[in-house]
Amino acid sequence: MEQSAPSARTKVQRLPHRGAYDQETLWAILDEGLVCHVGFVTDDGQPLVLPTTHVRVGEQLYLHGAAANRMLNTLSTGVAVCVTVTLLDGLVLARAAFKHSMNYRSVVVLGRAKAVTDAAEKRRILSALVEHVMPGRSSQVRGANDKELAATLLLVLPLNEASAKIRRGPPVDDPLDYGLDVWAGELPLRLRPLPPVRDPKLSASVDTPEQLARYRREPSP
Amino acid sequence: MEQSAPSARTKVQRLPHRGAYDQETLWAILDEGLVCHVGFVTDDGQPLVLPTTHVRVGEQLYLHGAAANRMLNTLSTGVAVCVTVTLLDGLVLARAAFKHSMNYRSVVVLGRAKAVTDAAEKRRILSALVEHVMPGRSSQVRGANDKELAATLLLVLPLNEASAKIRRGPPVDDPLDYGLDVWAGELPLRLRPLPPVRDPKLSASVDTPEQLARYRREPSP
Repeated sequence: MEQSAPSARTKVQRLPHRGAYDQETLWAILDEGLVCHVGFVTDDGQPLVLPTTHVRVGEQLYLHGAAANRMLNTLSTGVAVCVTVTLLDGLVLARAAFKHSMNYRSVVVLGRAKAVTDAAEKRRILSALVEHVMPGRSSQVRGANDKELAATLLLVLPLNEASAKIRRGPPVDDPLDYGLDVWAGELPLRLRPLPPVRDPKLSASVDTPEQLARYRREPSP
Repeated sequence: MEQSAPSARTKVQRLPHRGAYDQETLWAILDEGLVCHVGFVTDDGQPLVLPTTHVRVGEQLYLHGAAANRMLNTLSTGVAVCVTVTLLDGLVLARAAFKHSMNYRSVVVLGRAKAVTDAAEKRRILSALVEHVMPGRSSQVRGANDKELAATLLLVLPLNEASAKIRRGPPVDDPLDYGLDVWAGELPLRLRPLPPVRDPKLSASVDTPEQLARYRREPSP
């Protein structure tokens, strides 16, 4: 079923049945993703795409980095930006090479960012960023001091122009190919932790938390 | 040790010690990645970042899609493009919120793409694309027929302007924070398969290949 897009330029063009625009779908993808890809245009017209971490709080998306970060400084001037989050869910293995695909969920956000300058607001969002990556950890670690807060550039981008694109399910082969004697289906892929690696400088008296081995980034079953 | 960049605009600006420009490093990241993020600029100056699949063959990077794909058609006109591949290797958990980070390997490729029109060359690269995703599979499945070949737009991008950025290792905390009683270290993350899901239309006589459960995307140890 096709949903209506918030703007013509966020409407999914190729395979529009894969498009989604509802808040619940968009937020779930943004909240699961650890990495986003930020696209902007340099003065000479060259697009640049750089990976970074994001956090969604309410109806806003936040990016952060060093105060000297060139990309964030460019974005803070209000130039057009695109932030894309992609979750790879599996390989779609068809009987024909042409029909191979991937199952994925992605979100594209268009807009213009601005800097968050209020100190209390910056602290709140930076805590949310730690929580986004590792729930429960923001209360365990030392929070940002004034110097660190000043050294951090935090940008906010509204989520009012965004779209999701999703592919799920088995391969779709040509009718004649279903008789071929080749395995077809989906190989689901998930991001899973290996055993935690202790900082060599960590005191032997600090135990490794058991929940690290259970860390997951995936939708609830 | 800092390496020399192929161009000023590919030189890693933030934390230049994380930059790498040698072919072996670049190729390994491109070859491991299943998804790339392609950045280009629309007529009205809006950057767009869309995920797709790539394959490197020799010193060239290839993108493909439906002949009607709007992004690929725009790119085929030779506009400036940026292709970024990011591999997330782990979460870097520090004692201070400010010092949290991620271990990753990323490659940024700048350039201009053009369409590959030679049919034999298209077949060769599309086979390489299947091999990139699932080694050994291209010889097992039905290859592209003339109609499918004509319905595929294949683009090539030289790899002569590219850079890698890499973070590895434990967190780096402030000296005073090493005494804090909080676990610190790295939580390595890997893309791992769940049990394969058979296509519901797959004949019961076709066994699930055992190697699917051993599928890995990660550097050799």
